Order: sequence, then structure tokens, then C-alpha cells
Amino acid sequence: MSQENSIGIVAPQRFCSSAPIRLKSGVTLPGFELVYETYGTLNPSRSNAVLVCHALSGNHHLAGIYAGKPDDIGWWDNLIGPGKPLDTRRFFVVGVNNLGGCYGSTGPLSINPENGKRYGADFPIVMVEDWVLAQARLADYLGIETWAAVIGGSLGGMQAIEWAMRFPDRLRHVMAIASAPKLSAQNIAFNEVARQAILSDPNFHGGHYAEYGVVPSSGLRLARMIGHITYLSDSQMGDKFGRQLHRGEYQFSYDVDFKVESYLRHQGNKFSAFFDANTYLITTKALDYFDPAFDFDGDLSTALARAKADFLIVSFTTDWRFSPARSREIVFALMKNRQRVSYTNIDCDSGHDSFLLDDPRYHAMLRAYLENIGI
Amino acid sequence: MSQENSIGIVAPQRFCSSAPIRLKSGVTLPGFELVYETYGTLNPSRSNAVLVCHALSGNHHLAGIYAGKPDDIGWWDNLIGPGKPLDTRRFFVVGVNNLGGCYGSTGPLSINPENGKRYGADFPIVMVEDWVLAQARLADYLGIETWAAVIGGSLGGMQAIEWAMRFPDRLRHVMAIASAPKLSAQNIAFNEVARQAILSDPNFHGGHYAEYGVVPSSGLRLARMIGHITYLSDSQMGDKFGRQLHRGEYQFSYDVDFKVESYLRHQGNKFSAFFDANTYLITTKALDYFDPAFDFDGDLSTALARAKADFLIVSFTTDWRFSPARSREIVFALMKNRQRVSYTNIDCDSGHDSFLLDDPRYHAMLRAYLENIGI
Repeated sequence: MSQENSIGIVAPQRFCSSAPIRLKSGVTLPGFELVYETYGTLNPSRSNAVLVCHALSGNHHLAGIYAGKPDDIGWWDNLIGPGKPLDTRRFFVVGVNNLGGCYGSTGPLSINPENGKRYGADFPIVMVEDWVLAQARLADYLGIETWAAVIGGSLGGMQAIEWAMRFPDRLRHVMAIASAPKLSAQNIAFNEVARQAILSDPNFHGGHYAEYGVVPSSGLRLARMIGHITYLSDSQMGDKFGRQLHRGEYQFSYDVDFKVESYLRHQGNKFSAFFDANTYLITTKALDYFDPAFDFDGDLSTALARAKADFLIVSFTTDWRFSPARSREIVFALMKNRQRVSYTNIDCDSGHDSFLLDDPRYHAMLRAYLENIGI
Repeated sequence: MSQENSIGIVAPQRFCSSAPIRLKSGVTLPGFELVYETYGTLNPSRSNAVLVCHALSGNHHLAGIYAGKPDDIGWWDNLIGPGKPLDTRRFFVVGVNNLGGCYGSTGPLSINPENGKRYGADFPIVMVEDWVLAQARLADYLGIETWAAVIGGSLGGMQAIEWAMRFPDRLRHVMAIASAPKLSAQNIAFNEVARQAILSDPNFHGGHYAEYGVVPSSGLRLARMIGHITYLSDSQMGDKFGRQLHRGEYQFSYDVDFKVESYLRHQGNKFSAFFDANTYLITTKALDYFDPAFDFDGDLSTALARAKADFLIVSFTTDWRFSPARSREIVFALMKNRQRVSYTNIDCDSGHDSFLLDDPRYHAMLRAYLENIGI
């Protein structure tokens, strides 16, 4: 983190919506809470607000650090701050932990008012549409009628697209990065294996592991390891690890032989120590279920026709989880409607995770786009 | 199976090598048994023998059926038989279950003479080099000094390549299909997740599950599901399953939503019901460890310079597990040495598994190559 451009010390806030929310599944929650953070200042005309939507394992802590925790840096700190591409001297930036999350928003770890116990597996499966509805309530609460932009990478990009369809008059720009209009069979397959790893962990206990004082960390660890392979590009893994040996020679055992094994185990262990398994399951389902063209006979153009926002679509050449071709599906659907769309395919070696990195061309492009947004 | 061209009823045979075998790990086995099958007739000059090496989950049962079991068809039956590309009217074809396998050859399911119990996790990790050494003993036993060809797909192709380097005078043709000169970091990563799924299954019991009367089927199931994703191409999965729903609408549960999930679960369940987890672990390690250039400063050309065989290298356009680029590494290394190599990249939509299918251009090419082998 570049300290001089950091937003500095930030603190999460809570929004409590006491009105019921009816979810796409048909389940109604009596109310909900969202944890969020804001950076910068909302201008008097309330025209400079930007919503940043998080992906599978993200949260509301986008930028800056927490008091006394200098290492707890926001996950998109390289993008957001004074003088950074998403410049907090100009924009009022909002990050929110989604419904069903495990960072403080209402989710499986929350107390179910019906029985006084944690929801666990009883928390309903949510969809991208539900998240956007909840985010809109937060926008109401913050007095934001219209977002200057809604931005997200991967699953976050899906939320940005959904915003444009669901609330066409409430945002001026969609910035969907490393995203896709819907998951492919292969995407769903990877999610399914991750889910099966969690569901078959003996500590899962049908999702009510909290009642047993355990967590299905073994399954969650496997899920994260599988995910990680898909976040990186083949060539990047080759450059970073290749066939480098951890101890210089084959072990002829199932201990770590190759450095890439050590890396994956570390990532899996780290993640499974803090992330909630039920949230992981819910979020993969939200990914699988997102399909805006579903109600339009699969015609994405028709689905997107309602949108009034300008679109920026960004893909990365080595992203094989959501390949550039998937971004171009969105671009072509918008072009067919003669909607305003800019598209760029960034030549970056870091696969799907590129959207989180500060590749100079990528950031220069986001900076230029954001500078051109009138406030 | 085309019944009129079937090899018909076949039966496995056993070869017992009572001489010790020293493995690459440094472990010495006091002796070993291999289960094998043969089809066709060895000609008087013993010049028409072809060895077919199996891949991760394959075995010795290449073609034909077993008496009373008409559905137990060999895994490469579409290739091998009278009038088929690998024509058993002309060639004497040998299939063998590798050392460490779970189809009857000496492996983790065998009795360890040291303690009278199944080897389980005490069976040593073997390498491709060990397999080839054991196969050479079988060749000695069968009176085959020189194979007309050694053929294999994927891991089987690695064995064929190893044959050419280890026993340059004992084969005339290498046919390596959908193979690679060594695994990439991404390849190893997928294997590692599969291993971790097995190793973390509570029923694994450190690999001595047989003593507990259980099998780590949950871990093996996950391993197979992960594997299956890498065997198929993204486009093929899209064509075959797309986003088709199992019950016509979202379930909002972790039951099967999409047909691709149902397919993967079925494949995982089927496999975990019969395959041995320790063999799976050993075989993934054999894959990871194969690296013929390792002793030659990573120079594959130097490693291959010993080979005297003609090479046929085949890849498939949609194979992303071992992409065409991996096959071309072998081709270029051979060309650099001015060795005789033919290469073809088959335009087939079925990903890595294409090598098992009977794509007409693929089979026509194998037929032509085999017809040109003098016997």
C-alpha cells in the first residue's frame, strides 16, 4: 500500500433495515442489517456516489486500514483513495458486505429470530437480485438516489449489471470487470465440486456446525484450493511456481513436493480459518443462479434493453474463469441495442485475479474512465 | 461396440516376477505380479507386438468382453480388434495393469509379505520409470525383445516416451497421444487438490482404511469430480449440459440444480465405488514426478537424444489438461535432434478425453500410421 495515498483509518458502519425483504427464493426475511464503509464525502447534489460490489470472498472493507490494525488493508486499496483511480477526493465510495455474508451483515452466522440460534443452513439462498435490492435500501438510507457508478469485478460485476437492469434510473455508469453474463457449465462444475467438498465434510452437520462447536474447515479448505486454481492463469502459475521443489528433491510421500502445493495448502488453510462455509455455499449458488437473460428466452440483449447506464466492460487476456469471450457477450448484447458501451481487453498475465491487481494499463484505463464521469 | 469387429471374449492373465525390483524411490519390492491381457497372435519373428499403456484410471482390459459379462468392455475397444485401427489380425496387442494399480497387479490392495496385511499406504510411490521397468520384465517373459510400438494416451503416452529413452533398442515406434513431457504447475495443482480430498477424508486413516473396513469414498469422489472437469473441454460441457436444469427450476437448496452437477456426482459416485484411493494417490504422484528432462538441466532434446524409435505425437485442439502446446514441446525437442517424428493436432471438441473416443479423423490417422508399421 502506498501510505501517502491511503484513505487512512476507516471504520465499518451498520445499516439496519427493519422492513421485511422478500427474496427471489420466496423466503421473506423480517429485516436485515448490512455492514458498510464509506470513503470521501457525499457532495451536496449527491451526484458523486460510487458503489463497489464485492465478489465471492470479498467484503465491505475496500480501502484504508482499521485503527490499531495497520495490516488490515482494504481489498481494493490499490484502486481507492486520494489520488488513486477511484479518487476519494472526488467520489464518495461505498463498500457493503452482502446479505448472507460472514463479515457482519445478516447471514448464516446471525441469530435467527425464530429460534434464537444461529441461522446456519437455515439462512436462505440468496441471488444477485436480492443483493441489489438490499443495496438499494442502503442507498435510500444514505440519501443516494442515483449512483455515479456501480463497480465490481467477477461476481461484483454481475451485481453492477443487475443494478442497471433493476434500477435503470438509479445509476449512470456500470463498470463490470472480469465478469460474465452467466456461468458456463464448467464454471458451475467447479462451484459444485467446491460445494460437495464442504457438504461432505463430517464437521458440516447439515450446515448447523455452529451448534456442534466445529467448522467444516477441511471442506472449506478444499473449496478454496479449487477456487484458487481457477483464479490464476496457467502461465502465471508456471512463471511463479513452475516445477520448483519445496525441498529440492522428491519426497516420495504426500508431504509437499512442489512449491505450488505449499502455496495452495497455505491459501486453503488461511481461508478456512476465517470464512464461513454456509456463506461460501450461498455465494456459489448466487453465482450459479445469475442469468439475467433467463426470463427473456436467453436473449441477453432484450434483458439489457431496460438499462440506461453507460457501460464499461473490462476483461483480461489470461482469465480462463471468465474469459474475454464472456465479457464480449455482454458487449455485443449492448451493441445490438445501440447502448453506450466501452470495452477493453487488458493484456495481463494474472488470470481472473487481475481485476484485483494494479496493472498499470488497467488502472490507467479505470482512472481515465472515472475522470470522465461528470459529478 | 461394434460386435462384428469385437475381439470377443478375453481373459486376464498373471505374470509373476520373483526377482526383486528396485524402485526409483529407493524402495525394493521382493517381487511383483502384473495382470495383463493379450489379443491377436505373436508372429514367429515376434515383430508384431504392441504394448498399450494405461492412464490414470485405466487398466489391462483394453478390448473385448469377459465371459458372462457382456457389458464389461475394454476401455479402448473402439481402437483394438479385428479390422480396427489397431488391428488384432495383424498385431499382437498387450495391455497391462501397472505396478501400484488396483486391478490385480501388485499394489496397495496386495498383501505385504512383511506383515501379512494389505500394503495400503505402505505401498511405495512408484514412478513412470518403475512401470516401464516392470513392463520390460513382462516383455521378457512374453519373449518380446522389441515392440513394434508402444502406445498410450495421457499418462500412457508418458510411459511410451519413457520406453524410448530407457530401452531405445526395444521398440520401433512411440505413439504418444494427448500427452505432455511433464506436468505444469496447474496440472500439479489439480492433482494436489484431488490428493488433499482423499488425505483429509476421515475414512482414509492414514491410508490403512482397509484395516478399518472402510474406504475414503467421499475424498475419492471429489478427486474424480475435479479430474472430470479437466478431462472435458469447456465448449463440450457447454454443448452437453449448458445451464440445463435437472428439475426445470432453481431448487434453492444444495440438491442438484443443473444437469452438469448430476453428471459430476454420478461420475464421482461410480468411480469411488470401485477404484482404490491409495492407487489414485500413487498414480497422481507418478504423473507429477514424470520429468525426463530433469536429469538433463531441463533440456528435453538432450533427454530424448537416446531414443531410436519413430515418434507419432497426437494432440487435440480442445484439450486444456495437456494442451497441444505440450505435445509440440515433445515434437520440437525431437526435431531439434533431427529424430523422426510425425505430429498431428486433431480438431475435436471433446477435450482431453478425445484420446478415448473414436473421432473419425483421429482413428483414420492412427490406422494409417499403424498400417505403415512393418512387421
